[in-house]
Amino acid sequence: MKINQNYLNVGESYLFSTISTRIGAYLEQNPGADIIRMGIGDVTLPLCPAVTKALHAAVDEMGEKTTFRGYGPEQGYGFLKEAVRDRYAQRGVELAPDEIFIGDGAKSDIANFLDILGTDNTVMVPDPVYPVYLDTNIMSGRKVLFAKGSESNSFLPMPDASIEADLIYLCSPNNPTGSVYSHDQLKAWVDYATKRGGLILFDAAYECFVQDPSLPHSIFEIPGARSCAVEFCSFSKSAGFTGTRCSYTVVSDELEFGGVKLAKLWLRRQTTKFNGVPYIVQRGAAAVLSPEGQAQTKEQVAYYLNNAKTIRDTLRAKNVWFVGGENAPYIWMKCPDGMDSWQYFDLLLQKANLVGTPGAGFGPAGEGYFRLTAFGDKDRTREAMHRLEKL
Amino acid sequence: MKINQNYLNVGESYLFSTISTRIGAYLEQNPGADIIRMGIGDVTLPLCPAVTKALHAAVDEMGEKTTFRGYGPEQGYGFLKEAVRDRYAQRGVELAPDEIFIGDGAKSDIANFLDILGTDNTVMVPDPVYPVYLDTNIMSGRKVLFAKGSESNSFLPMPDASIEADLIYLCSPNNPTGSVYSHDQLKAWVDYATKRGGLILFDAAYECFVQDPSLPHSIFEIPGARSCAVEFCSFSKSAGFTGTRCSYTVVSDELEFGGVKLAKLWLRRQTTKFNGVPYIVQRGAAAVLSPEGQAQTKEQVAYYLNNAKTIRDTLRAKNVWFVGGENAPYIWMKCPDGMDSWQYFDLLLQKANLVGTPGAGFGPAGEGYFRLTAFGDKDRTREAMHRLEKL
Repeated sequence: MKINQNYLNVGESYLFSTISTRIGAYLEQNPGADIIRMGIGDVTLPLCPAVTKALHAAVDEMGEKTTFRGYGPEQGYGFLKEAVRDRYAQRGVELAPDEIFIGDGAKSDIANFLDILGTDNTVMVPDPVYPVYLDTNIMSGRKVLFAKGSESNSFLPMPDASIEADLIYLCSPNNPTGSVYSHDQLKAWVDYATKRGGLILFDAAYECFVQDPSLPHSIFEIPGARSCAVEFCSFSKSAGFTGTRCSYTVVSDELEFGGVKLAKLWLRRQTTKFNGVPYIVQRGAAAVLSPEGQAQTKEQVAYYLNNAKTIRDTLRAKNVWFVGGENAPYIWMKCPDGMDSWQYFDLLLQKANLVGTPGAGFGPAGEGYFRLTAFGDKDRTREAMHRLEKL
Repeated sequence: MKINQNYLNVGESYLFSTISTRIGAYLEQNPGADIIRMGIGDVTLPLCPAVTKALHAAVDEMGEKTTFRGYGPEQGYGFLKEAVRDRYAQRGVELAPDEIFIGDGAKSDIANFLDILGTDNTVMVPDPVYPVYLDTNIMSGRKVLFAKGSESNSFLPMPDASIEADLIYLCSPNNPTGSVYSHDQLKAWVDYATKRGGLILFDAAYECFVQDPSLPHSIFEIPGARSCAVEFCSFSKSAGFTGTRCSYTVVSDELEFGGVKLAKLWLRRQTTKFNGVPYIVQRGAAAVLSPEGQAQTKEQVAYYLNNAKTIRDTLRAKNVWFVGGENAPYIWMKCPDGMDSWQYFDLLLQKANLVGTPGAGFGPAGEGYFRLTAFGDKDRTREAMHRLEKL
């Protein structure tokens, strides 16, 4: 029996374990140090009351023979697909419910979507980047090119007609940089993909943080995207579902390659290799999209964006270059005094007991930069910025 | 952009849609006909009180900031892995918690496990068979051989040393036949796989139905299995989790090919392409394994097995050849009078308003056979058998 040899080419995921190790070593030398963690992209506010109410009601249904639900549709229940469709419609994007597939996480869907695509495609991923895009393609042996982010493009790389890519990953608002593409910029990517007969894999997991009404929430706000893009979105960051698990993937009926509709292949993949999201969780997700749920979760997003403002104000006062934090929960800052990412990590840990994420962990173009997240507690974020000011 | 061409080789999954179409056509001709469905492998009893209690408690935890849980470990929480380990230990199988991976369904895990295995392996699947084994391998372009079940081997195919297979699928208790391998028979498969350097993918989703103490629940009851087998199991059938979604996969630390531990590759796959099972669901699953949960779910299994006995008694009285139903929720019967599977389907539908699953839908060796399931209501199952007796 032979293993998938491509797995041997995937780097170990050292980033967060290295961070843990360095924190552990510091705490051993400095027991009781009051460390503030601004490194992890996980939410901290609890599920909102509209959601827990729906979850409790669904648990009760599952406990009664007359309302019990066994296997559901692998692609999600109609009530949730229709709620997602309505949410898109509010922004002027018209979708059919059958173009919406409910999944257990944007990460799973982004990774599993590759299953229906040829391994002979050339892939383009941004650098710096959410490591899953790169690792999943190495696991399947695809050739990967990088679209380099830098200060000069505000970490929003744009297409280069001379580069031949078939699969194009875009993440906006971006993880790790917090940058957001404009309509015009996304239009350039849609044009590039259309011209090349390529496919855009658009990660919209952070769209709920977009506050500027001129910025797009969805690739489908761009004309032409229906025939060249798939969109992945999630309840993780909009409603604190990182531990509750629900996402949705939009595959338009117009998306067709070599005469084959991708929606049909994705449905075949999901019905064969997936059994749907728990009924209880789908009821919770539908509650997120209710008027009550929307009001409550928008308060949570505002809470995190207020933390982001605290961070931005501090960096601006200190004249530090950064992007993000306005329409995203991430702030991507330049390390001061020419320090590299890990030097700055150590400095912050040792002199201010602050933990962030070294930009180099997201790719070579992240070297010299640093990611801070706004997902923490309000008071702790303020305290963290007081320490940074004093540094 | 090129699609995965292998998907074009996967047959349409016509079985259950054809069944629906035929029922629909019959109901159009015979409105109000009282049809009893014994075709689908889905449970009908609700979640037991121990489970709903744990689910409610977990929902409450998720609604409070101090007890809220975000991202969990992709491979499952310690409390659930330890409960699974303890359950194996009760049957004399010693596992380390790190050899247990919590998943969202045996179907997902069985399908996704192929991701870490080479596409140049030759696969052996039983015929008849749960269609997922076959379809997932066609999707990845692997060569597939069949191990034929028949009356002469009680639909328990045994290894043939002349056949060279690298990946061997076994399902015991079997879906669709309800047959169960003995220790000696599994030992022959373990010896075959060991000798060939092959890997057994053992689907134990129905192990909870095994009542005969001489029959194995787990491949790991067989010496040597730790270095040649992976086991997939689920809460779907043991505790009615088909709509709640939780499974576990056991990859022993000794399982190694070409110097690479499969547990390490599987962990890499899951941490990259999966984000874990909802915390709430994992608490529900742990409650299944509590003494209270075990007592309540065993009552459900007994209820279904009592239905199976009703079916078996009727078939025996009518002198119909069958297997299964003693240690499994499925009864696999020979169609009477030399009818083929679909002829018998039509006869049962039209003359007795009974629906089962044509054996031919599970592979060529299923032609001439028929699957009945014991997952229905007690009184309806009795009524169904009265109708069959009269036929």
